[in-house]
Amino acid sequence: MRKNFKLIIEYDGSSYHGWQRQKNRKTIQGEIEKAIMTITGKKIALTGSGRTDAGVHAFGQVANFYCDTEISPEVFQRGLNGLMPKDIIIKECNTVDEKFHARYDAKTKTYRYRILNRTTPAAICRQYAWFIKKKLDLDAMQSAILHIIGTNDFKAFEGAGSPRSSTKRRVINAGLQQKEKEYLIFEIEADGFLRFMVRNIVGTLLDVGLCKITPDDFKKILLSKDRNLAGATAPPHGLFLMNVKY
Amino acid sequence: MRKNFKLIIEYDGSSYHGWQRQKNRKTIQGEIEKAIMTITGKKIALTGSGRTDAGVHAFGQVANFYCDTEISPEVFQRGLNGLMPKDIIIKECNTVDEKFHARYDAKTKTYRYRILNRTTPAAICRQYAWFIKKKLDLDAMQSAILHIIGTNDFKAFEGAGSPRSSTKRRVINAGLQQKEKEYLIFEIEADGFLRFMVRNIVGTLLDVGLCKITPDDFKKILLSKDRNLAGATAPPHGLFLMNVKY
Repeated sequence: MRKNFKLIIEYDGSSYHGWQRQKNRKTIQGEIEKAIMTITGKKIALTGSGRTDAGVHAFGQVANFYCDTEISPEVFQRGLNGLMPKDIIIKECNTVDEKFHARYDAKTKTYRYRILNRTTPAAICRQYAWFIKKKLDLDAMQSAILHIIGTNDFKAFEGAGSPRSSTKRRVINAGLQQKEKEYLIFEIEADGFLRFMVRNIVGTLLDVGLCKITPDDFKKILLSKDRNLAGATAPPHGLFLMNVKY
Repeated sequence: MRKNFKLIIEYDGSSYHGWQRQKNRKTIQGEIEKAIMTITGKKIALTGSGRTDAGVHAFGQVANFYCDTEISPEVFQRGLNGLMPKDIIIKECNTVDEKFHARYDAKTKTYRYRILNRTTPAAICRQYAWFIKKKLDLDAMQSAILHIIGTNDFKAFEGAGSPRSSTKRRVINAGLQQKEKEYLIFEIEADGFLRFMVRNIVGTLLDVGLCKITPDDFKKILLSKDRNLAGATAPPHGLFLMNVKY
């Protein structure tokens, strides 16, 4: 009987060319599909909730695949975790309604971006945060963030080469918290994300934190819909896909 | 003029044979001494607050060294961080009173041990916690911990091959906290530690958490002064030297 399997996946994206399968390149989707094929002997197409770019991490990526098999979800999970590299872990594996689609059914996604803001780089966990030496103005950054909450056209924060029917997205929550004194954690939940959207927002927020621009300038950039006015794209290694809600 | 330099050091111990200098083996002390020699052209002996074992990490190891030099602490810090591998970072470098001795003057040290307690191993930060699959009894572990607070003879938790004048130590604080649902963080501050003491305490606490022994059994093991009764030595990669107080 054909079953629909739902996976919740944690991965360290450091050594991968992103989520999406590519010929001759190591990707998360590619590794998981390869392992499923080893177990089932069948070629399977895995559907992710969305792509993550090269170097981006995930605590709760969601994907599904169809398979005509008697193998139980528990056995699948153990088998996949046994076969795959240690930087990809299947946290959950369940059979779900045959209509469940990891991408189309996603209601919101939450991303986190970690900034290490102190005078020296990290020795521990150094591949999981963007190191910024200059002291950032947290209050100014928090004021700027308020402007992105709600439904907005995020064209100014969209990466090049990503054709979309609309560049409007609804941001349900966004905030910045200080953690263990030296880390700044930016968290954002939205009904969808444009390519590089989080990293472009963070890059522009950084300009606010460095007092190169004001929170009001940040708002003007958002309203301008002009990518050229926004800041640099923050590096991928500070970014985490936290969870996907259905 | 001979100056006394004090360093605060963060390191990821994953790829080192511990703190202490060894011939033909990569150690933290060895790397720092080598970098100091490159900068000054002089052979320097670095004094650490104490050794950490192979694979153990530090957020705040402290060390000092004497050097007759005109180089400022700021230039030393930048030079060392530029010369050393990225998993060792000099967080602070200052000149201090010539009598300051990183080991003899240490009043207390604080260690942290991280346990990941969930059904699957970590993909992210996997080299920084001990993965325990079976659900641990937090309350029982916390009850056991109360027995080590105060001055006790920790002979039952001492590793072999470590001659000491006394095996009594004063534990000022010890506690266990849950973090992000799946992590257990054991923290302990004491006026000194025997070899493997934290890791042997954690290994025995694990037996309490797994309900193999009771908190009362834990107390009996402590009072027995018999290493054979205590649990296994927890692996080094979950252990962090947090700070040293003077």
